[in-house]
Amino acid sequence: MTDARSTNITWHSGSVSRADREKLLGQRGVTLWLTGLSASGKSTIACIVEKMLLDRKKHAYRLDGDNVRHGLNKNLGFSAEERAENIRRIGEVAKLFTDAAVIVIASFISPYRKDRDAVRANLGAGDFVEVYVKVSVEAAERRDPKGLYKKARAGEIKGFTGIDDPYEAPERPEIVIDTENTDPENAARRVLEYLDAHGYLQS
Amino acid sequence: MTDARSTNITWHSGSVSRADREKLLGQRGVTLWLTGLSASGKSTIACIVEKMLLDRKKHAYRLDGDNVRHGLNKNLGFSAEERAENIRRIGEVAKLFTDAAVIVIASFISPYRKDRDAVRANLGAGDFVEVYVKVSVEAAERRDPKGLYKKARAGEIKGFTGIDDPYEAPERPEIVIDTENTDPENAARRVLEYLDAHGYLQS
Repeated sequence: MTDARSTNITWHSGSVSRADREKLLGQRGVTLWLTGLSASGKSTIACIVEKMLLDRKKHAYRLDGDNVRHGLNKNLGFSAEERAENIRRIGEVAKLFTDAAVIVIASFISPYRKDRDAVRANLGAGDFVEVYVKVSVEAAERRDPKGLYKKARAGEIKGFTGIDDPYEAPERPEIVIDTENTDPENAARRVLEYLDAHGYLQS
Repeated sequence: MTDARSTNITWHSGSVSRADREKLLGQRGVTLWLTGLSASGKSTIACIVEKMLLDRKKHAYRLDGDNVRHGLNKNLGFSAEERAENIRRIGEVAKLFTDAAVIVIASFISPYRKDRDAVRANLGAGDFVEVYVKVSVEAAERRDPKGLYKKARAGEIKGFTGIDDPYEAPERPEIVIDTENTDPENAARRVLEYLDAHGYLQS
């Protein structure tokens, strides 16, 4: 530990900028927003993208129901208004991480177009990349790894997206992944290729 | 761009962990929580700490009123309940950034001990470092760079911390900085020395 007084550096050049952080990390901050039905494969793809980015020495962070619904948004229920607030807060957190130069991988059903578009509008141009993880309700229901569609059909879960609540598909997503015809590894590679091609993986 | 199908890597080893991110960045995630009166010097110190960390090639991010009150918490007012929710949400965001292996520099008056202690309890042991930026009300009032104390004395601002709302000093902060006897550069160096001494600047 050097004596704090032994140097005469003056710190007056203002705050560290986003560009400074991007240069440090060798990447550009961005929010990858994965939207799609329950059982579409969002989480699986998100995890693989995260791993592939780490292998490229890139700093990524996943936001999903696990780390948001039990923390930041634990005081929100599932009314339309609360779902909107849920997505709004997640969008604001994603914006902070993006400003921090992190590659955010947000994975939420986020069924309403209006809520997703509000997040897009709140982030800067190029900072929001919508990834539509596409699957038919029929195929998702056949997968049903958590038995949620079964419960929804039985009326044990109300307002379940795709059953008794609508899923509004993105109109102009940056990336569409048809998970009935692509495996998760290839889906993740497509996301990486998009990031590469658009310069996000360099500063 | 290589053909996505040309490699046969299988991705089944689970998610990227916090330890993986810390190794990538060569640092440990932590939340530095700067608390103190308005005009205590929190923001100045926060900016210098951020700059010093960047010079050490460390990835830090500041959370403060500027990027939180106008975004994530723009739907909160200043009642006791809303102030508590303000700090709760900031604490949850700091927790996410800490899990992302970032060094968070949170700078908020955060006058109530209960709210700060809830943030501490919510973060893991060693993940929360409370920095008490100490100044007397008299000295802060003499500085008054934004004229806020003057307005509070004139009754134009109600519930102003230190004037007609209490500031509850931390009882066991990790770092105390007496800004009446230390300049901001030395204060920031003390914070860096703490991080160094406690192993946060290596993974």
